Amino acid sequence: MRRILSPAAMQALALRLRREGRTIGFVPTMGCLHEGHMSLVARARSMADVTVVSIFVNPLQFGPREDFKRYPRTLGRDARMCLRAGVDILFHPAASAMYAPDHSVFVDEAVISAGLCGAARPGHFRGVTTVVAKLLNIVQPHFAVFGRKDAQQARVIEQMVRDLNMPVKIVVAPTVREPDGLAMSSRNAYLSEEERLRAPDLRAALEAARKAAKAGERDAVKLCRAVARRVEAGVPPMAVDYVSIVDYATFKPVRRLSGTVLLAVAARLGTTRLIDNIVLRVD
Amino acid sequence: MRRILSPAAMQALALRLRREGRTIGFVPTMGCLHEGHMSLVARARSMADVTVVSIFVNPLQFGPREDFKRYPRTLGRDARMCLRAGVDILFHPAASAMYAPDHSVFVDEAVISAGLCGAARPGHFRGVTTVVAKLLNIVQPHFAVFGRKDAQQARVIEQMVRDLNMPVKIVVAPTVREPDGLAMSSRNAYLSEEERLRAPDLRAALEAARKAAKAGERDAVKLCRAVARRVEAGVPPMAVDYVSIVDYATFKPVRRLSGTVLLAVAARLGTTRLIDNIVLRVD
Repeated sequence: MRRILSPAAMQALALRLRREGRTIGFVPTMGCLHEGHMSLVARARSMADVTVVSIFVNPLQFGPREDFKRYPRTLGRDARMCLRAGVDILFHPAASAMYAPDHSVFVDEAVISAGLCGAARPGHFRGVTTVVAKLLNIVQPHFAVFGRKDAQQARVIEQMVRDLNMPVKIVVAPTVREPDGLAMSSRNAYLSEEERLRAPDLRAALEAARKAAKAGERDAVKLCRAVARRVEAGVPPMAVDYVSIVDYATFKPVRRLSGTVLLAVAARLGTTRLIDNIVLRVD
Repeated sequence: MRRILSPAAMQALALRLRREGRTIGFVPTMGCLHEGHMSLVARARSMADVTVVSIFVNPLQFGPREDFKRYPRTLGRDARMCLRAGVDILFHPAASAMYAPDHSVFVDEAVISAGLCGAARPGHFRGVTTVVAKLLNIVQPHFAVFGRKDAQQARVIEQMVRDLNMPVKIVVAPTVREPDGLAMSSRNAYLSEEERLRAPDLRAALEAARKAAKAGERDAVKLCRAVARRVEAGVPPMAVDYVSIVDYATFKPVRRLSGTVLLAVAARLGTTRLIDNIVLRVD
């Protein structure tokens, strides 16, 4: 496995690989890798000649009061996991190499990013689209793999790639969960023992809504209220940030379930913000 | 010369050319080609194996009260000029092929684009950066050639390419002028006979400022006032939109001339908006 820090060196290598006709698969991450990330790596490896993983904790996607500073950084461990998983290139640039002091160009998505995490975290998706555009230009992948756990992020990236005509295919891979149902996330590392026991209630509330929908409930407001009640009932307390049922293509809230919709939730457990979602298909 | 309308077909061909190791040079235009454009084509041809010209009147870079509808479209004549000039590929997509009805992704430059034409034409540079990002992704050039007549546009594009790590080199080529000094522009076609005779005063005012600077004048405000006075004195009337002396790298106004600065002017002659600029180097 090759480790590369310089964006220019990474890009030069990627352009050479492309000229040689090799297929590049890419998994962009912020590190603190877990089985969720590794499932994306496995997906990339199954499709590509060369698999690139990036590790970059992107300052631009964190708000001023968010957890940029304390976001877990475990580069040594991450590198060993990548090596064992058969990653070919690990790209981990410094922030100073990614953003010039007079950096002034941003990519904005205006519709899909407006609600949910976009409303709760102003500037977050501008940071995501900008850094992913940069990473895609540097790594030059034929396809890039994102996790469905960050469903809104994946849709925003799909839209960016379509609207800017970027020559890359976005692959969205299923959420990987702990045995008790908690969606894997680097932020789970923040949870105390007590909070960790409480965290799976987020998923349980989503699954209860799935059951209700299966039993015939089509009223999105009622379903969301039930999820919120269930998330907020319990100790230690969990405070709902949003619960929303949206059209999977547009991320606009729906009133009644029909076709394929996404039920998404964000909640704070202590100082940790957790998100999860499920896809609901109704006839 | 190959003519291509489909962005997907253009991109597929460009990616194939890149795999074959061929160097792609690109001249993006809005058509109504003149000698200025053809000098960019000649520059591209001298550096590339394959020269691509795009013709696309980009609705996104025109304000609601601007001249999108009446912008001259002369595709047949443009195609013949490209053919004669040795262009290999003419890419002229329809607006509907470039922008999906639910297009929602934009590229923004926040600093260099703020003043001059950016202040006078809100949203203009967002339209420029967005369409150029799209065109660069579609055409996949190794370098793209822009004219210095649109000096701010060229700097904004340079910044976009740097900040988004786009794998392309931006080449800025000198302004081509009519024998009487008027900078070549597709918008010159709007001028009445009387206006056309008056238009070179724009350049003459800039050259007078160059003379004053050579004679020792370093006060930017004084120089700009003299340009404005000269532009506005004459018939038919010409109304100054802006006159500004800016640092060539940052496009921030300077108070005193030192190093390399750009003296830029925009003015309205009848219903036609004309721009021009000169580079001043002082010790």
